[in-house]
Amino acid sequence: MKIVSFEVGGQARFGVAQGTGIVDLTGRLGAGIHSLRDALAQGALEGIGASVLGAGPDFSLDEVKLLPPVPFPEKIICVGVNYGHRNEEYKDGSAAPRFPSVFPRFPGSFVGHGSPLLRPRESEQLDYEGEIAIVIGKRGRRIAQDDAESHIAGLTCLNEGTVRDWVRHGKFNVTQGKNFDASGSMGPWMATADEFDGYDRLEIITRVNGQERQRDTTANLIFSFRYLIHYISTWTTLQPGDVISTGTPIGAGVRFDPPRFLKAGDVVEVEVPGIGILCNKVANE
Amino acid sequence: MKIVSFEVGGQARFGVAQGTGIVDLTGRLGAGIHSLRDALAQGALEGIGASVLGAGPDFSLDEVKLLPPVPFPEKIICVGVNYGHRNEEYKDGSAAPRFPSVFPRFPGSFVGHGSPLLRPRESEQLDYEGEIAIVIGKRGRRIAQDDAESHIAGLTCLNEGTVRDWVRHGKFNVTQGKNFDASGSMGPWMATADEFDGYDRLEIITRVNGQERQRDTTANLIFSFRYLIHYISTWTTLQPGDVISTGTPIGAGVRFDPPRFLKAGDVVEVEVPGIGILCNKVANE
Repeated sequence: MKIVSFEVGGQARFGVAQGTGIVDLTGRLGAGIHSLRDALAQGALEGIGASVLGAGPDFSLDEVKLLPPVPFPEKIICVGVNYGHRNEEYKDGSAAPRFPSVFPRFPGSFVGHGSPLLRPRESEQLDYEGEIAIVIGKRGRRIAQDDAESHIAGLTCLNEGTVRDWVRHGKFNVTQGKNFDASGSMGPWMATADEFDGYDRLEIITRVNGQERQRDTTANLIFSFRYLIHYISTWTTLQPGDVISTGTPIGAGVRFDPPRFLKAGDVVEVEVPGIGILCNKVANE
Repeated sequence: MKIVSFEVGGQARFGVAQGTGIVDLTGRLGAGIHSLRDALAQGALEGIGASVLGAGPDFSLDEVKLLPPVPFPEKIICVGVNYGHRNEEYKDGSAAPRFPSVFPRFPGSFVGHGSPLLRPRESEQLDYEGEIAIVIGKRGRRIAQDDAESHIAGLTCLNEGTVRDWVRHGKFNVTQGKNFDASGSMGPWMATADEFDGYDRLEIITRVNGQERQRDTTANLIFSFRYLIHYISTWTTLQPGDVISTGTPIGAGVRFDPPRFLKAGDVVEVEVPGIGILCNKVANE
């Protein structure tokens, strides 16, 4: 199943995408279940199959505004330097990292599929980073690697849009350049875990204006999905709806000489076969 | 006024602390206002004076479990290296930073006043950092410094507890060592902005087992409250209930030779005259 979150008439809703339509689930799975995050927290996704079966679409996909699959997670945790050759790309002579580099992003830094990615007034260095993001389905702390995949509710495409000249603004941390409002995107939906036969051979491709810029597979990850869930849950309790973005392949715009930053009108696509294509056009704020 | 968030009978509530009692505000300020964050978002704090006047306490402070003043903010943003002499303390020969170092913490990394601070199984290096935290009262983006103080709803004490050997685990960012569950604390309450005559001469003192370890005043801040609100809102929209912790003075345990990390039974107090004393005992997880 593909679970979408969307806005219609100024109200946030969620449902199942089927063909060109959406079967609305808001309020259909029980009292107090108004979002995908609610549904995950109450284990209500299990029951969706039956209630959706035979239901006609309530909305057409092209009449709604898609939101990130989980618009307001408790946590969005991004992983840096995780595909093969990414550490070499930094050209700082450092050995491959022993542990993942992780940093949080805030919900407002993401838009859904189809909404404009904003290049802020403060910078000319908005860049793309295509990633695969995990949506957590089950609460857990100190999750064993063998048990980790059972905590995955599904996957989504993520453009971890970055304002490069604000990434190393302070003494430590990449927070600023990773958290400009509407600088990244997630979607178009969450493909549920049952649609995947393991997570070790997923492909990810990023295109700008139709031109391929990034391509890799999760076979080349330094830290697997299993390990990331285990590692992150060592220090923080993972909650239903939490998002873990698993890192970007080589080929972001900043790595070209000269750099190829995004400008107004550019179209960025992040494709993950098995999930779909996340597409956003860039606009100047 | 001192606004407390607390738990009683397994339910989260909020109210006004008066003497040894709490006047419960949950549900009293209007439908849908169940927390301090709700009250701030709906501008309902203005009306509290009248409804509280003459009301007797609903609870005694010592019969409830205090929570962080805003238990689930959208964002908790911490500032590093912000008091005079803090940059020198790193002994890395670097010039004073031009911009603040900022990093997020997740809500689960904090407990309220009186709850145990947990030293996790993974480390013997739990450390204290006494700080003053701002609670945002009003939404804003690109807030001018002149207007910034009008976005402050109030202040609270914060112990930005840190697991030192996990701070530089990855290639970049301090995320891990700053986000162990229950490793920090906030409280005991939010003192509302009208109780302060400006923010440039606030004192902060940290004690461990009664012994003073940190003492400084906001007169020595590299980046003032005004500037922090301005700077952070350049890239992210500040929301009611968001927390900005403004940095710690010199004197954290790791800076001693040998380091003085926290151990089970230690009592950490963070005192800010005008707010109060945040006190937590350390326990092994």
